[in-house]
Amino acid sequence: MKGNELFSPLTKKATKILLLGAGELGREVIIEAMRLGIETVAVDRYLNAPGQQVAHRAYTGNMKDAGFVRAIIEREKPDAIIPEIEAINLDLLFELEKEGFNVIPNAFATHAAMQRERIRDVIAKKAGVPTSKYLYANTLEELEEACEKIGYPCWVKAIMSSSGHGSSFVESKKDVKKAYENSVRNARGAGDRMIVEQHIPFDIEVTELAVRHYDDNGKVITSFPKPVGHYQIDGDYHSSWQPAEVSEKVEKDIYRAAEKITSALGGVGLFGCELFVKDGKVYGNECSPRPHDTGMVTLATHQSGYSECGLHVRAVCGLPVPSVKDGEFNVIPPLKPGASHVILSPCDGWVPGMRNLRKAMGNDISLFIFGKPEAHINRRMGVVVALADKVEDAKKKAEKAAHYIEIQTQQQKWLPQQEKRMHLT
Amino acid sequence: MKGNELFSPLTKKATKILLLGAGELGREVIIEAMRLGIETVAVDRYLNAPGQQVAHRAYTGNMKDAGFVRAIIEREKPDAIIPEIEAINLDLLFELEKEGFNVIPNAFATHAAMQRERIRDVIAKKAGVPTSKYLYANTLEELEEACEKIGYPCWVKAIMSSSGHGSSFVESKKDVKKAYENSVRNARGAGDRMIVEQHIPFDIEVTELAVRHYDDNGKVITSFPKPVGHYQIDGDYHSSWQPAEVSEKVEKDIYRAAEKITSALGGVGLFGCELFVKDGKVYGNECSPRPHDTGMVTLATHQSGYSECGLHVRAVCGLPVPSVKDGEFNVIPPLKPGASHVILSPCDGWVPGMRNLRKAMGNDISLFIFGKPEAHINRRMGVVVALADKVEDAKKKAEKAAHYIEIQTQQQKWLPQQEKRMHLT
Repeated sequence: MKGNELFSPLTKKATKILLLGAGELGREVIIEAMRLGIETVAVDRYLNAPGQQVAHRAYTGNMKDAGFVRAIIEREKPDAIIPEIEAINLDLLFELEKEGFNVIPNAFATHAAMQRERIRDVIAKKAGVPTSKYLYANTLEELEEACEKIGYPCWVKAIMSSSGHGSSFVESKKDVKKAYENSVRNARGAGDRMIVEQHIPFDIEVTELAVRHYDDNGKVITSFPKPVGHYQIDGDYHSSWQPAEVSEKVEKDIYRAAEKITSALGGVGLFGCELFVKDGKVYGNECSPRPHDTGMVTLATHQSGYSECGLHVRAVCGLPVPSVKDGEFNVIPPLKPGASHVILSPCDGWVPGMRNLRKAMGNDISLFIFGKPEAHINRRMGVVVALADKVEDAKKKAEKAAHYIEIQTQQQKWLPQQEKRMHLT
Repeated sequence: MKGNELFSPLTKKATKILLLGAGELGREVIIEAMRLGIETVAVDRYLNAPGQQVAHRAYTGNMKDAGFVRAIIEREKPDAIIPEIEAINLDLLFELEKEGFNVIPNAFATHAAMQRERIRDVIAKKAGVPTSKYLYANTLEELEEACEKIGYPCWVKAIMSSSGHGSSFVESKKDVKKAYENSVRNARGAGDRMIVEQHIPFDIEVTELAVRHYDDNGKVITSFPKPVGHYQIDGDYHSSWQPAEVSEKVEKDIYRAAEKITSALGGVGLFGCELFVKDGKVYGNECSPRPHDTGMVTLATHQSGYSECGLHVRAVCGLPVPSVKDGEFNVIPPLKPGASHVILSPCDGWVPGMRNLRKAMGNDISLFIFGKPEAHINRRMGVVVALADKVEDAKKKAEKAAHYIEIQTQQQKWLPQQEKRMHLT
């Protein structure tokens, strides 16, 4: 889709996007689309998912069910199908693509990214970006052998899972059995295949939100927001900041690695390339062919309309993605340094509420509450983004603001967010 | 409503706002509310108004019809009723307020602002802010007499109208009859009463987007975004920029005047105080008790969540409005200077489209397309906001970007926007 025109939504000439998965990132994609008069359809597995609340139309059901998804696609005939999550019927996406539907960025990338073995092979082999050492295993015996070969400490991860589920840090041989069981128990979908990854004690973990988009001549080029630094707790994003503290040389190596990985995946749209840096060297880890959790910091650091979700919409619809030249790279600079910090539920239950908002919503704080109908322990219910002249100050401000917030559900009294591992304040 | 807690939308404990009128400003109010998990209801006179496309629920009908509006209010029981336009049944708003509903900022201010005689009296008499000289007239004879007393040139305006309709610039006695006819023809509602205003050739016209909101002690205080400069063409907003080019002394006088006017109106929320400056002196003109067209520049100049619409939501829901102290004033500084420029339709018709978006959406440009189902000549279809280090550069960039865009409807071929009066480039 090469876009130079847009017509009113809810008409036959409208540009229409359909999201498969409409959580907090989907909501922001939909808001950015709405602000351009693009028609939006949100599909999710539960009623009143964040993006469903904002979209023109919503559908609820199991996205693994090819019949359910196909019926919607055939009814809506969207100009772009945007997978936001990984629990989608992949065979259907390949079929739809063959039939001429525009899957973002394409079925191959969506298929590759949903499984650690496939994305690792794209990064290491197709893109030629260095990764930590890795081996695969299908049984406890194979796992024990693989761990020995990689060396301790190492990581054991289910090849299909997300948000850190099924991942274990293995310090020595005695942890292997527990890691095996954790992986089997938490894998998404069938299969007890797992990956063993060498543990590199990285200096910083970054996400490069590379955007593949059409230039004025209809050629696909790549542009680069400044790298986002982040840390995870138990494999799940906890805080991110922009720009990441890397040298100019490393910054360019990050762009180079992201360009290789995203070219190997193809299509247009924004990608979240997870990379890590050790002793000035950039390693590939994973890559999501869509906006990334850690990129929510751009909801406030970037100019209005150019958050990672705004960039995704612009790229998907063939609209321009302006940038400035920095040597050979097209860079999208932030307006101001900033940091994000998640708001995680400490309890389960319906009708979640947040309190102490007066304390949390202070100077330089942008608050996003996702409006999810149900909380689970450690479910992400919102995010705080703080701006500051220095990224270090932004991190502290975001952390402090997020931790003021207490959460309750109809089944639970008010509880603070207790996670303080890796925090600064 | 003093807010320190928010519960999930679409539940009994949700905070719910209802907008009477849901155009482009209403859409942004709803987006900001959505991002805080606040439940939203949009009422407008036509189907698929911009805000209706985003809100949780929408109703369409005549807002002058008390029965129609009351039925919705009684069904929805919103925590706040937010009038966005002036064509609303005012008697009903007074009744609802008596019954305990929370009208934003209150029925009195909404009533005063919809009519030039009432708002002029509030500004000049209740608030004690100087205005240009003015007189009222009901007949052609009275008008001729009033114009003589005020002196030429002067302005003749219908006391009830908006967007410049029914306003005439009167250079001499020979223009009075035409001005009379224009006023009578374009007045909204009954009545041929009109106001004659002295013409002061001001140095700059500004909007002060003063916010009245609760502080941490539950007291209503006022905070001030930097003044927005703007110009109008034929009485309708065409371009605005922030900050306005005024001295520090004048800036503070602007805050003082806006504080007096908004205190006289009362309630909480954001107000658009139209003021003008002549020889370092600040004059009151009008004041809307709601976000103002010219304030759309804050969609990009302010931090995410703090556009004029974000500030309105925060104030309405009793959430904090952070600011920095500048002497006696609470000031909300922009992230960066910026300017807005409207995109006006050059034609009538359904299914409006825009083209040349690739040219328009360049560096530093945030584009907002309102997604209205129908265009009329000079109807506002979108707005461009440009950021720059200097406000003068932002003005030129916004103007240039907006004028790249051509518009068509199903009845009309592509047409450029031709209005170039008062432009810089």
